[in-house]
Amino acid sequence: MTTAVTTLDLAAPLPDLLTALVDIESVSGHETPIADAVEAALRPVAHLEVIRDGDVVIARTDLGRPDRVVIAGHLDTVPLAGNLPAKVIDVDGRPALWGRGTCDMKGGVAVQLACAVALSAPARDVTWVFYDHEEVEAEHNGLGRIARERPDLLDGSFAVLCEPTGARVEGGCQGTMRIDLKFAGRAAHSARAWMGHNAIHDAAAALQRLVAYQPRQVPVDGLTYREGLSAVGISGGIAGNVIPDACTVQVNYRFAPDKDAAAAEAHLREVFAGIDFDVMDVAIGARPGLDVAAAAAFCATVGGEPRPKFGWTDVARFAELGIPAVNFGPGDPSKAHADDEFCPLDELDTCRDALIRWLSGPTRSDPSVSRLTR
Amino acid sequence: MTTAVTTLDLAAPLPDLLTALVDIESVSGHETPIADAVEAALRPVAHLEVIRDGDVVIARTDLGRPDRVVIAGHLDTVPLAGNLPAKVIDVDGRPALWGRGTCDMKGGVAVQLACAVALSAPARDVTWVFYDHEEVEAEHNGLGRIARERPDLLDGSFAVLCEPTGARVEGGCQGTMRIDLKFAGRAAHSARAWMGHNAIHDAAAALQRLVAYQPRQVPVDGLTYREGLSAVGISGGIAGNVIPDACTVQVNYRFAPDKDAAAAEAHLREVFAGIDFDVMDVAIGARPGLDVAAAAAFCATVGGEPRPKFGWTDVARFAELGIPAVNFGPGDPSKAHADDEFCPLDELDTCRDALIRWLSGPTRSDPSVSRLTR
Repeated sequence: MTTAVTTLDLAAPLPDLLTALVDIESVSGHETPIADAVEAALRPVAHLEVIRDGDVVIARTDLGRPDRVVIAGHLDTVPLAGNLPAKVIDVDGRPALWGRGTCDMKGGVAVQLACAVALSAPARDVTWVFYDHEEVEAEHNGLGRIARERPDLLDGSFAVLCEPTGARVEGGCQGTMRIDLKFAGRAAHSARAWMGHNAIHDAAAALQRLVAYQPRQVPVDGLTYREGLSAVGISGGIAGNVIPDACTVQVNYRFAPDKDAAAAEAHLREVFAGIDFDVMDVAIGARPGLDVAAAAAFCATVGGEPRPKFGWTDVARFAELGIPAVNFGPGDPSKAHADDEFCPLDELDTCRDALIRWLSGPTRSDPSVSRLTR
Repeated sequence: MTTAVTTLDLAAPLPDLLTALVDIESVSGHETPIADAVEAALRPVAHLEVIRDGDVVIARTDLGRPDRVVIAGHLDTVPLAGNLPAKVIDVDGRPALWGRGTCDMKGGVAVQLACAVALSAPARDVTWVFYDHEEVEAEHNGLGRIARERPDLLDGSFAVLCEPTGARVEGGCQGTMRIDLKFAGRAAHSARAWMGHNAIHDAAAALQRLVAYQPRQVPVDGLTYREGLSAVGISGGIAGNVIPDACTVQVNYRFAPDKDAAAAEAHLREVFAGIDFDVMDVAIGARPGLDVAAAAAFCATVGGEPRPKFGWTDVARFAELGIPAVNFGPGDPSKAHADDEFCPLDELDTCRDALIRWLSGPTRSDPSVSRLTR
């Protein structure tokens, strides 16, 4: 038994294309139907070579241009919250498409597809990447898998990730480190508290340090990254009549892309001097790289003042491959994962038009855009 | 199909009787076999009237004495920890019976049974109470049920609860109140912490107050009660990348029996001024009542300096019925619920002999014991 592949009309108005994409449910781990639909829609496009690898679909022009850029987006979404099928809503007088995946990030995928089919002779060669498993553990990430197994497919001088940015350029990304602060006490009956040692009380000092902490604001490649150090979880306690012998405070450190993992950990060892902790996970950030020619040209073309990206995104995977990358896509990033997720329809056009202008335009930055690089 | 009732030899040496009791597993909710065995052993005793009510067994003398006392103990235990069957061990050169329930509180039950059968003509009428469901939620407590449904069965001028006290008198008991301190924040992505409000960080101030808190030591009826205010649980956090919007700190207040529930709550409202909390449960304590004649006579007979009881016990149920009560039984209270729970064998004899002396002795206190009442 085969399931019919959804037909996507890549030449349709962007709101219609986005609706079709959103209505193909694609919670992480269930991307095959949407990858099938994307592949089927791109296969007939004469100017594209289409490669299918697992649930990753890659479509490339091969025009022998001196420059190649990569434009990527993920096909999966976080779990539904009763927010499908998609519908058009009004947000403060502005039409938007509502539903899971509209913002994060099928709006970007729709823009990619529309540009991929429209641009038969771009000034830069383009590798369009559609990938799976972005919303789950990093080990499953489709882009990461391709970077490991077939890095040649991601070759390029610059990359754009079409994550939601409100149609503005957000450069690089912060790094993130999670640590577990551990407090050990000695259990005792709470009626004889003095016979034990209260691990939760010990955690007070660590929370105090978090309250007093002044996060840095760090300029990197001309963008100012705002750091953060936050308790994101706390647990302790055995029973209502027992002095707790253990308490764990989970802390998330978001750090500017001028720090590597060792520097981030060293900073936390200083902040939490005297307190035992384990590093649970770390992902370094990505510098915005706006001084690279392709990046400068991109910023100049799409316009607006680039902002730093707060939050870790797959731009860091490109950074690891030595490819500078920025985030640029339709939708308010604060609506990602929200139950009332939506994407303003006008931002679809804005992003498509900007990408087409950039990909059709001159391949070298000119001096007039250099102000953007600092 | 019927299960054979275990035969208890109430005239056996106390270590043998205790071993037999301990080897009848009786985790709360499974007291019927041990209640059956206790009932079957007491029924043939000519000087006792035996009443069975659920898994409560009550045995009474009815000699028309001017005074009646109640001596009570519970038949249930906390869950096993691989610590049955019982065995004799050596604790610092002192033989002890090891196993679940030896300390809490079948040592006391063995003493009760031995005294009940030995004392055919006590100077005071005695009501021996063996009850179920002490180690679980108060609503199931067998003694509480009898106090509600048949309070006449608990009539008396004084009560002894044979909970472990190391064979010393522990008067009254502390009260206990549990409150949940609630902190509300606003969720946000932890990469943009400044857009949220961290509820765990807010809890720091409350933990600081707990750390700084100086518990009272309060003399009540001549005994000094040591209070305590402890975090016994803390929880908060949504995910490793989300600023937590809620944090709850569960606090247990152990207060001296000079305070009622309203006074205890008023004190906590003062300590946690400005912080929202809910009272989750409260049980007031019991004054030691050592100035009551029967109590004074009891203390004089068993000897030793009475101590305050730390921890809430069912003496408070007697206090609610207007009956002063003390704790007195074999076993170190700090071994109650411990995996290596045990009861020193010599304390069984000490307690039995003390109870027999008291119950056989004069029914009025004499002036020489009045020093114990302050």
